[in-house]
Amino acid sequence: MDTIKIPRTSQKRVVIIGGGFAGLALADKLCGDHFQVVLVDRHNYHQFQPLLYQVASAGLEPSSISFPFRKNFSKKRNFYFRMAAVTRIVSDQNYIETPIGTLSYDYLVIAAGTTTNFFGNENIRKAALPMKSVEEALTLRNTLLYNLERALDCTDADQKQALLNIVIVGGGATGVEIAGALSEMKRYIIPKDYPDLADHEVNIYLIEGSSRLLNVMSEEASAHVYKFLTEMEVNIITEIHVTDYVDGKVIMSDGQTIATNTLIWVSGVTAERFGGIADDCLARAGRLVVNEFNQLKGHSNLFAIGDICMQTEPDFPNGYPQVAPVAIQQGELLAKNLMQVEKGGALTPFKYKDKGSLATVGRNKAVADIKKIKLQGFVAWAVWLLVHLRSILGVKNKLMVLINWIWNYVMYDQSLRFIFRSRPKGD
Amino acid sequence: MDTIKIPRTSQKRVVIIGGGFAGLALADKLCGDHFQVVLVDRHNYHQFQPLLYQVASAGLEPSSISFPFRKNFSKKRNFYFRMAAVTRIVSDQNYIETPIGTLSYDYLVIAAGTTTNFFGNENIRKAALPMKSVEEALTLRNTLLYNLERALDCTDADQKQALLNIVIVGGGATGVEIAGALSEMKRYIIPKDYPDLADHEVNIYLIEGSSRLLNVMSEEASAHVYKFLTEMEVNIITEIHVTDYVDGKVIMSDGQTIATNTLIWVSGVTAERFGGIADDCLARAGRLVVNEFNQLKGHSNLFAIGDICMQTEPDFPNGYPQVAPVAIQQGELLAKNLMQVEKGGALTPFKYKDKGSLATVGRNKAVADIKKIKLQGFVAWAVWLLVHLRSILGVKNKLMVLINWIWNYVMYDQSLRFIFRSRPKGD
Repeated sequence: MDTIKIPRTSQKRVVIIGGGFAGLALADKLCGDHFQVVLVDRHNYHQFQPLLYQVASAGLEPSSISFPFRKNFSKKRNFYFRMAAVTRIVSDQNYIETPIGTLSYDYLVIAAGTTTNFFGNENIRKAALPMKSVEEALTLRNTLLYNLERALDCTDADQKQALLNIVIVGGGATGVEIAGALSEMKRYIIPKDYPDLADHEVNIYLIEGSSRLLNVMSEEASAHVYKFLTEMEVNIITEIHVTDYVDGKVIMSDGQTIATNTLIWVSGVTAERFGGIADDCLARAGRLVVNEFNQLKGHSNLFAIGDICMQTEPDFPNGYPQVAPVAIQQGELLAKNLMQVEKGGALTPFKYKDKGSLATVGRNKAVADIKKIKLQGFVAWAVWLLVHLRSILGVKNKLMVLINWIWNYVMYDQSLRFIFRSRPKGD
Repeated sequence: MDTIKIPRTSQKRVVIIGGGFAGLALADKLCGDHFQVVLVDRHNYHQFQPLLYQVASAGLEPSSISFPFRKNFSKKRNFYFRMAAVTRIVSDQNYIETPIGTLSYDYLVIAAGTTTNFFGNENIRKAALPMKSVEEALTLRNTLLYNLERALDCTDADQKQALLNIVIVGGGATGVEIAGALSEMKRYIIPKDYPDLADHEVNIYLIEGSSRLLNVMSEEASAHVYKFLTEMEVNIITEIHVTDYVDGKVIMSDGQTIATNTLIWVSGVTAERFGGIADDCLARAGRLVVNEFNQLKGHSNLFAIGDICMQTEPDFPNGYPQVAPVAIQQGELLAKNLMQVEKGGALTPFKYKDKGSLATVGRNKAVADIKKIKLQGFVAWAVWLLVHLRSILGVKNKLMVLINWIWNYVMYDQSLRFIFRSRPKGD
């Protein structure tokens, strides 16, 4: 296998796998004087995952929540980017393998995040629409619109209903947010765009296995979201698992079925996997067990940060939640610690600063748990907007998102209802 | 075959195939009191073709130059849209066939436009990147960026050069405009984004079969565009035809070759074809011969407008140019004439009002022939911007295009450099 052509210099080389929140925070903070930084990602852009559901529901363009790595780091010295999916980590020889060649490292940071967990069910994997990348969100948008077009001329009543049933599996933040956005599409867009469809024909189901929606947030938040979504005509089903998808029907643990061509699957994640990781480093759902410095067991130069890692402390015996703030804080701390390693100084252990949780279900409707404070409705929604707008990378993206939000709010219009198909030739 | 489910009312039904400039102008003007209008298009949106090259060169989003038909016509009575590709016209029984069913009509208007002409060469068709739709423009953008990424780690020097050679075949407006945009990308983006590529390694070739670029415009315009593009380091080759593409190399009529993975093909168009059209209706490149009222020979209720039709008059013995103004004027006149047919009044023959031609090659650089007036440089460029901004459908699209243009102009940045892959499931 060829070697990826990046010059070896006097600086130590830090290879970062994955440019999500964790990898990006680390790369941003790592000083170009002390290290050569190589970011490897299968995409050529960072994606702002919290707003994927708005791409899926035709409210935002993929480009508004994406940012090219090369542009982000164009002014940083000793930074290199390579677009590739890492296949194997050879930790005893300090290199990684990718389809475009091998790459040696002094320090390796695994920040590859998670992928959708289909719990081993191939039927579901083939049929379902996950929502972990802008490409998947676009596919979801395309499929939604395509099914509406096809429903119009469907002569078989059952088949037509299956085209108009939307089933969302997973009542976490993503499931709740996409349910809300699709409910707004159902109420504001479909009557205008599809006057020959009765809007009551479109049914949105939200299925959650546990006893309440948003079960990582407070009971108050769950109760408010339940109330909001019920008012918005979302059919909420709790304490039921989806066990299979057969003959175009979702099969539930109580034996009931729902026929649907639009099965949105946001019910869990599993860590991205690589060859070469020892079994004793793996925890539940493939997460990589790390110590308080985010080091993998038995490897002083191998780290994992963000959703892919499993770091425990007394308050979080099952690991930190897989959310952006943990990832960003771990990335920022690791930048400091890597410099300490070089200087021979003492490392700082990680301690999560929890600033709270937010989820929105639509215009003027959101919930927020900020330490002891519980907010609902318009105030929570305003906080949600500000926090997300502030976090999006790039002035132009902020501007584009803001214009789209104002437009959609004022016009009751998720205006990007296009079915676009595309991929690079030779890919 | 099923029938498409659209209610038959007392109004006569006008079926329009294709929602480009011609079909959209016709549908907009046809009064909902007198006719039931059914628009059939393979896409669910109108696309503003003059700016496709900016989508391809990462300056604009597809959504900024696209407009959903359902949104455009949501307030129009007696209007129906169906997303389908028409396969056959059965004119003796007044219906059309599509994959989603048949559709009967009282009047049929063919406004399906043209598709890329590969002149029967399968090697070229398979390898080439055409630019007739936003999806093709996106594929071109994805391929360009993908090839740059791949070039970085290419160990074979010839293969690397092929990844960095861009060959544009066709020196009409589209070829000239994409050559200019890619030259700006080469000069302003590549040195920043790919510091490990030498920018002189990227070569842009523009190949035109006739003796001058923009050969439908004035000699002054051609000369200025030649000068602009030469200064912008585009390699212009005239009076040479591309005859084949073999082993990754473009073969030219003088026997020379250029190795390239990026073959942009904008060298000619041919009319969209349907089953059921008599051979004696077909002119050069498949265009449908129509009389001065845009009627097909021998069919009082069958019309063709826009790029697909061939209408001649003494000043245009080979038919009108295949440009937006002709299409729009034909669509608007046909709306009036169809109402005359219903009233039994006299039809008005078509007469093209030529307002001039424009082409741009980059910042502050354009050419314009407006009747006897020839403009070049900044003034022509300002006229070009205004004319195009004014013509884009929708307030939000105008705003998005304007913001992107200002951003790109001020920042020297075509900022949408993402490789996105997506298509609907079940498509």
